[in-house]
Amino acid sequence: MYLLEGPHLVQEAAFSARHLLSAVLIDEAFRLPEDWPLDDVEVYQVTHKIFTELSQTETPQGIIAVCRMVQPAVTVHQGRYLLIDGVQDPGNLGTLIRTADAFGLDAVFLGEGCVDGYNGKTLRSAQGSHFHLPVVHRNLFTVVAAMKQQGIPIYGSSLQGQNMKKTDGDKNDYALIVGNEGNGAQPELLAETDIQIRIPMAGRAESMNVAVAAGILLYWLSADELAHQA
Amino acid sequence: MYLLEGPHLVQEAAFSARHLLSAVLIDEAFRLPEDWPLDDVEVYQVTHKIFTELSQTETPQGIIAVCRMVQPAVTVHQGRYLLIDGVQDPGNLGTLIRTADAFGLDAVFLGEGCVDGYNGKTLRSAQGSHFHLPVVHRNLFTVVAAMKQQGIPIYGSSLQGQNMKKTDGDKNDYALIVGNEGNGAQPELLAETDIQIRIPMAGRAESMNVAVAAGILLYWLSADELAHQA
Repeated sequence: MYLLEGPHLVQEAAFSARHLLSAVLIDEAFRLPEDWPLDDVEVYQVTHKIFTELSQTETPQGIIAVCRMVQPAVTVHQGRYLLIDGVQDPGNLGTLIRTADAFGLDAVFLGEGCVDGYNGKTLRSAQGSHFHLPVVHRNLFTVVAAMKQQGIPIYGSSLQGQNMKKTDGDKNDYALIVGNEGNGAQPELLAETDIQIRIPMAGRAESMNVAVAAGILLYWLSADELAHQA
Repeated sequence: MYLLEGPHLVQEAAFSARHLLSAVLIDEAFRLPEDWPLDDVEVYQVTHKIFTELSQTETPQGIIAVCRMVQPAVTVHQGRYLLIDGVQDPGNLGTLIRTADAFGLDAVFLGEGCVDGYNGKTLRSAQGSHFHLPVVHRNLFTVVAAMKQQGIPIYGSSLQGQNMKKTDGDKNDYALIVGNEGNGAQPELLAETDIQIRIPMAGRAESMNVAVAAGILLYWLSADELAHQA
């Protein structure tokens, strides 16, 4: 089980994954919107004092849900995936999950060295994307092996990689590996990729934030699909 | 004056902006690298107890610098700029500054509603980029007016904007405006832009993190320049 805080996240869960909601706790002053589909969910109203004790945030927003943690049984098939190796900052991890959702990816896999995908700060940074696509802790070497069997091209983000603009993007199916904030993905994992790529940079920063880099790489890998949009 | 924490940031300041360093404080256990150009900077060694009291971080790294806050006298000329309106999260602001640096922008302007550009968390997220390009608090309407006089095209990031892929990117000179995490840039400021653009999205996320969005937009605006790199 894990806690989900704030009206936006609880609303996302109520509409997208109600079966995961075990209970909802509201501050005595909080008005629950009538159109939220919570008929079969237990709702507890508690005093402001108790609510403030329970909240993990500095500015509690009046509503907390208790969610069942279900690791979805994801089978690797043709599709688009983000693999995250050793990211330590919960905010970065949540932003990565949100970005994967924005590009319509099929799943996000978190390697063994990653911070908890259901950490409170990760959930808040992901803004409800956990309810839009599977977020799964899994051994990344196993995941990569399964993807290779399916013929899915594996891209690794690396400062030592090729300039991505000199390589082929616009794939229908792909997996992108990004790694730890300081060290990137582990070399053994990068060795399993088909190609290592980097974002060309023009300034004096040595590198980019991992979530910003993933956003640019996913945009580039998805460019063909996105071009057809209005 | 402001405090700069950790060896990476102090090293960046020592090599890129030594004139800003007023003093350096080190923990009794910290070994100052001999090749840092700190000859004319006062260095104080303090006990571990005092150092821990002074540190603003949970895991102090043994070195803090006291820096002079100098708002650079930036004159708007032909170039590339990021204008940040009302961003509230210090981590997001730092990541935006780091991203602007990675794309070689000429300056970052922070509007009146922005969090402090020299907040400790902003400095840490920016990873030293403050010493690579000017970061200036300024009225954004005044900045935009000056840029228009120079004929610099002004782009505004907006979820209601045009799909950027249907518009002209690849400018030699530009200004990009990004805004508040929840509400975007203020409408009055967006009304002053030449064009409002959005990133095409394929998934179910309603929007992206502001720093990720800025990264993709700056990549797109800079694509022509970046194509010439090795």
